[in-house]
Amino acid sequence: MSSTQGQVIRCKAGKPLVIEEVEVAPPQKMEVRLKILFTSLCHTDVYFWEAKGQTPLFPRIFGHEAGGIVESVGEGVTDLKPGDHVLPVFTGECKECRHCKSAESNMCDLLRINTDRGVMIEDGKTRFSKNGKPIYHFLGTSTFSEYTVVHVGCVAKINPAAPLDKVCVLSCGISTGLGATLNVAKPTKGSTVAIFGLGAVGLAAAEGARIAGASRIIGIDLNPSRFNEAKKFGITEFVNPKDHDKPIQEVLAEMTDGGVDRSVECTGNINAMISAFECVHDGWGVAVLVGVPNKDDAFKTHPVNVLNERTLKGTFFGNYKPRSDIPSVVEKYMNKELELEKFITHQVPFSEINKAFEYMLGGEGLRCMISMEN
Amino acid sequence: MSSTQGQVIRCKAGKPLVIEEVEVAPPQKMEVRLKILFTSLCHTDVYFWEAKGQTPLFPRIFGHEAGGIVESVGEGVTDLKPGDHVLPVFTGECKECRHCKSAESNMCDLLRINTDRGVMIEDGKTRFSKNGKPIYHFLGTSTFSEYTVVHVGCVAKINPAAPLDKVCVLSCGISTGLGATLNVAKPTKGSTVAIFGLGAVGLAAAEGARIAGASRIIGIDLNPSRFNEAKKFGITEFVNPKDHDKPIQEVLAEMTDGGVDRSVECTGNINAMISAFECVHDGWGVAVLVGVPNKDDAFKTHPVNVLNERTLKGTFFGNYKPRSDIPSVVEKYMNKELELEKFITHQVPFSEINKAFEYMLGGEGLRCMISMEN
Ligand SMILES: NC(=O)c1ccc[n+]([C@@H]2O[C@H](COP(=O)([O-])OP(=O)(O)OC[C@H]3O[C@@H](n4cnc5c(N)ncnc54)[C@H](O)[C@@H]3O)[C@@H](O)[C@H]2O)c1
Ligand SMILES: NC(=O)c1ccc[n+]([C@@H]2O[C@H](COP(=O)([O-])OP(=O)(O)OC[C@H]3O[C@@H](n4cnc5c(N)ncnc54)[C@H](O)[C@@H]3O)[C@@H](O)[C@H]2O)c1
Ligand SMILES: [Zn+2]
Ligand SMILES: [Zn+2]
Ligand SMILES: [Zn+2]
Ligand SMILES: [Zn+2]
Repeated sequence: MSSTQGQVIRCKAGKPLVIEEVEVAPPQKMEVRLKILFTSLCHTDVYFWEAKGQTPLFPRIFGHEAGGIVESVGEGVTDLKPGDHVLPVFTGECKECRHCKSAESNMCDLLRINTDRGVMIEDGKTRFSKNGKPIYHFLGTSTFSEYTVVHVGCVAKINPAAPLDKVCVLSCGISTGLGATLNVAKPTKGSTVAIFGLGAVGLAAAEGARIAGASRIIGIDLNPSRFNEAKKFGITEFVNPKDHDKPIQEVLAEMTDGGVDRSVECTGNINAMISAFECVHDGWGVAVLVGVPNKDDAFKTHPVNVLNERTLKGTFFGNYKPRSDIPSVVEKYMNKELELEKFITHQVPFSEINKAFEYMLGGEGLRCMISMEN
Repeated sequence: MSSTQGQVIRCKAGKPLVIEEVEVAPPQKMEVRLKILFTSLCHTDVYFWEAKGQTPLFPRIFGHEAGGIVESVGEGVTDLKPGDHVLPVFTGECKECRHCKSAESNMCDLLRINTDRGVMIEDGKTRFSKNGKPIYHFLGTSTFSEYTVVHVGCVAKINPAAPLDKVCVLSCGISTGLGATLNVAKPTKGSTVAIFGLGAVGLAAAEGARIAGASRIIGIDLNPSRFNEAKKFGITEFVNPKDHDKPIQEVLAEMTDGGVDRSVECTGNINAMISAFECVHDGWGVAVLVGVPNKDDAFKTHPVNVLNERTLKGTFFGNYKPRSDIPSVVEKYMNKELELEKFITHQVPFSEINKAFEYMLGGEGLRCMISMEN
């Protein structure tokens, strides 16, 4: 049992670009307090830090892609104990709602992502404070802190032998892209897959296509500098829509005798979403949307494109249920089926978290691993 | 062997509303000549008869929903012989193209529906003539004739014990609706299914939901007179969008705690298509489009409706491959799993085919069975 159990913890936490000491209250009913060892930066942190999200809630502690160890557990928590190795996840699994009981959905009614809520569900209060004033949570995870408190439903217990500085990236973007391909698009061996957007999520989708045995993996991005990185990810061909006069879905149809078997859109751009749908082959093609669109976007296509036996799907966190499924994704890495090292392009200590923001804002690399202990 | 084999046949054929004697040439390579015993009228016949289709091609013989017997076969036809009971189908199965080889598609590259072609594929000529002048084919079937010539790929060989005056309706609309539910929407036992449009196709989709064991089948139509007929089809609740101020997808979400499990759109109306998609539950809902839209329609929805793990699919002839799958649909009727009698609301002899048109134009009943022999 940890000596800090039941005590308020004083630790360093990064409200982006400012690291200060905060107090972290003990976990309440169905909560766990985690010691975060590694955290990585994802676009969503930057997006909300820039306050593009609807309701800026300050001060709060960002961060949601992380790996850590359970420090203590609150009342009612039976499947986790201090010392367990875990990945916190921004969306949860209560195991009791219709979604959790459905084999198809991971959109838990209780713990589904909520970008507006800055408090814990149990009592509507924060577990972080400074000088008695509350500091808000972010995505139920707030991992830019040496310690954080998370609902037990948002914690995946993983193999303790797994290196947390690698599997950390499975806590958000990489699982999202990987699952979009493996769980939703489901390409068969030998098929052709188009990946729109070659950021970390799109490259994880490509990694899924490689694992599934796709024989052609076509990467599409407007930014030609993405193509270099992408070579490591099994992408066999590159297409830049800017190099063509005609719509990219027509270019792809010509390259593939009528259309690709599967497409996965990882851009957040509405035109890419429409192209990703229209570029799949009639009869059997499946398009999967992953990117988060703008509020006023409209997905628009001629209904005959649907009638001609195309399928359009969307996914959230790659359709993985965090507690039930993420441990086995970690095993895929342990078995060397899945490669994670290639996603981690930078590493910094927590004290230099600013650099991670700079790399991301500059469009450099894929993931910056931030080490909390140093 | 039939005494007419190899001879031109003179018989009565109905170019809508005019019955005249025509000559029917023997079947050529990969063709069969059929004696039609029963044919029924489908909206597509009326649509093209009214020349709403892009390229009016006259004179031609309409009709595509039928049951008959093989009179003779052309060169290379090995799996059909004179006397076989068959259903001609407006879309074919060559068994050799990528679609025919795919488990998922029935959109054969060679024999896929073609509303513009009025001639046979083999030689680009018609098999019908009158006084030496060609009469064009329609949908590769032209069943408003005592005899017709059809590509072997468009002929399903069925159980000779099956009553052709009943299973005739499986040749188009009823298979389309039934397959849309059973093969594409695939509701599970106990689920809730919404059917948009309660014409013959929609009611066949409802029949599919009944067979699949759906516990709630919600019928949606703008025409309240459709609700009477629909009671025989296991529809448990009716909703008329005209009775509500808010969008029908919101009404359905309220009735079903967030959305239906499956929806099948059988209207051809673009607003119904969008509602059918938006009314399915997030996480697991699947919407299937069946109705044929107008040329300038646009399917438009917020991409977040897709991202929230909804699936949109389209289907053509209920995803049935005509030669491989239709014989087993006939068996479903023979086993009493599937009811067909309730779809046949009128019967007329060929000489009164005009009446069948009047019933359909007047929106009366579902299918009018036209008997060729009498
Ligand atoms: N659904 C989920 O659960 C989930 C989880 C994490 C991230 N996401 C979303 O996934 C998307 C990708 O995330 P990321 O971190 O990889 O982002 P990223 O910004 O690193 O990569 C996106 C790439 O898309 C490219 N792009 C933009 N518009 C394009 C177009 N029209 N055609 C082709 N390429 C285009 C950009 O050049 C960029 O390289 C984002 O929208 C993110 O919000 C979704
Ligand atoms: N995909 C295929 O292979 C295939 C095959 C046959 C028919 N179809 C199509 O299926 C559709 C249905 O065929 P049918 O013969 O049953 O037609 P139908 O005209 O008998 O029935 C359509 C019904 O939809 C209702 N409707 C129209 N707009 C509506 C709306 N906005 N909301 C609710 N209900 C609405 C009408 O009142 C009518 O009762 C047609 O579009 C037809 O072209 C497709
Ligand atoms: Zn749940
Ligand atoms: Zn993230
Ligand atoms: Zn028809
Ligand atoms: Zn074919």
